[in-house]
Amino acid sequence: MLMLALESSAKAASAAVFEGEKLLGVAVENSGLTHSRTLLPMAEGLLKNLDRSVKELDVVAVAHGPGSFTGLRIGMAEAKGLCWALDIPAVGVSTLEAMAFGGPDMEGSMLCCVMDARRNQVYNALFTVENGKPVRLTEDRAISLADLGAELRAAKKPWVLLGDGAELCYNTLRGDGLVLHLAPEPLRVQNARGVGLAALGREPRPAAELLPVYLRLSQAERERQAKLGK
Amino acid sequence: MLMLALESSAKAASAAVFEGEKLLGVAVENSGLTHSRTLLPMAEGLLKNLDRSVKELDVVAVAHGPGSFTGLRIGMAEAKGLCWALDIPAVGVSTLEAMAFGGPDMEGSMLCCVMDARRNQVYNALFTVENGKPVRLTEDRAISLADLGAELRAAKKPWVLLGDGAELCYNTLRGDGLVLHLAPEPLRVQNARGVGLAALGREPRPAAELLPVYLRLSQAERERQAKLGK
Repeated sequence: MLMLALESSAKAASAAVFEGEKLLGVAVENSGLTHSRTLLPMAEGLLKNLDRSVKELDVVAVAHGPGSFTGLRIGMAEAKGLCWALDIPAVGVSTLEAMAFGGPDMEGSMLCCVMDARRNQVYNALFTVENGKPVRLTEDRAISLADLGAELRAAKKPWVLLGDGAELCYNTLRGDGLVLHLAPEPLRVQNARGVGLAALGREPRPAAELLPVYLRLSQAERERQAKLGK
Repeated sequence: MLMLALESSAKAASAAVFEGEKLLGVAVENSGLTHSRTLLPMAEGLLKNLDRSVKELDVVAVAHGPGSFTGLRIGMAEAKGLCWALDIPAVGVSTLEAMAFGGPDMEGSMLCCVMDARRNQVYNALFTVENGKPVRLTEDRAISLADLGAELRAAKKPWVLLGDGAELCYNTLRGDGLVLHLAPEPLRVQNARGVGLAALGREPRPAAELLPVYLRLSQAERERQAKLGK
C-alpha cells in the first residue's frame, strides 16, 4: 500500500512516501515560499525519484490541524484534489498527534506538543510513550501558557517539548521545579514522516469528509463576532 | 553562502541545502535504487523547489567515508563533477562525524556512531556533546564489536547509538552494566543534514583534493594481497 503524507500546518512544508510501514522517502523545505507553490512539487519530485507514479497511490494522509489557517487549507485542498482525481481515500490526522508520532520514542517519555497560537496561547496536546508509540494524555486544545505551565508542573516529571512553539514554552515556563527538554531539532518541528506514522493505524475515509480542525475562530470571524456584539 | 550537502555512504541517499547556517531543505530516500540514479535528481529537485539554481551554489559538502565503497565513490564523484563545472570548492567530512552532528544535541550526551562493516567489525567513532556540538573522543576506526563493547563499558556511562550499525551494537553489546540507547529513528541513520552541519565549521578546499576514507581495504584488494601471500 503506497501512501503519500502531507504536512503544511506551519512554515515548513513536508511530504513523505510510505510503502506499508516503510518510509521510502521524506522531504522537508523551509524556504519561506508559499505551500501552494512547494507542497505538490515536493511530492511529485519525491515520487518521481522513487520511480513511482502518482497513479500508484492508495491513500493520502494529511495533517488536518490545528495550525496556520492558510497552510492547513492548502494541505487539505491538495489532499482532496489528489484523492478525488485518483478515487482513493484519505486519512486526516491531528498536527499535534503527528508531531508526537514523529518525536522521540524512548519508553515512558512525556511529550508536550506545542504550536504558537499567538495571543499568549498555544495549541497543545500531551502524550506519553508506551510500547514505542505515543498515547494521548489530553485532547488537542488551545490553552494559555500559564495554564499549560501549571499542568506540566503538576505532573512532577520532565517533559520533552515538540513543535514550533517548543522554544517559546522552554523560554517561558522552565524552572520553579519544572524540567523541560527541547527535542533535537529534526524531531522538533512537524513533518510528514510523523503524519504518515500517525495515519498508519487509522482507517482511511472518503476524502470529502476531511475537515480542518482550527480549534479557534479565525481573526476575521473574531472581529465579526465582536462587531455583532456577541 | 549556498551549500549543497550529499550523503551516500549507506543504503539511503540524502541531499540538503543550507543558506549559511540555515537548513533550507533536506530529502532522504531509501528506495533501494542506486545512488547514481537518485542522488543528483534529489539535489536538483530540492534546489528547483527552493527557487534556487545549481549555479548559485558556493560550496559542496560530501561524506567522504567510511561507508559503502560504491556509495562513497558515487557521492565523491558527483561532488567533484559539480565543483569542477561550477568552479567552487568542496568540504569532505567524516561519515561518522556527520552522524554525530545530525544526532541528539543534549549536553553531555555520549554518542557512539557505528556502521556495520561486516566480518564482525564496525566503523566507529565516539563523541560527547559540549556547548551543543559533538566533540571527538576517538578517531574514526574499524574496530571489532568485542573491543568496542569493552571500551564503552569502561566509560561507565550510558551511550546513545547512531548509524546503520546501531541496532547491531544494541542487540550484541548491551547488558552486563552497559546501558545503550538507540537514537530516535530519524536521527539514527546518516543523512545530509548532518553532513552540512559538520561542514559548516570547516574550510572549503579544492575539490580535486577530496579523497574517500575507506578505513579498510576493499574485498578485491584483500583477496589480491592474500593471493600474493602478503
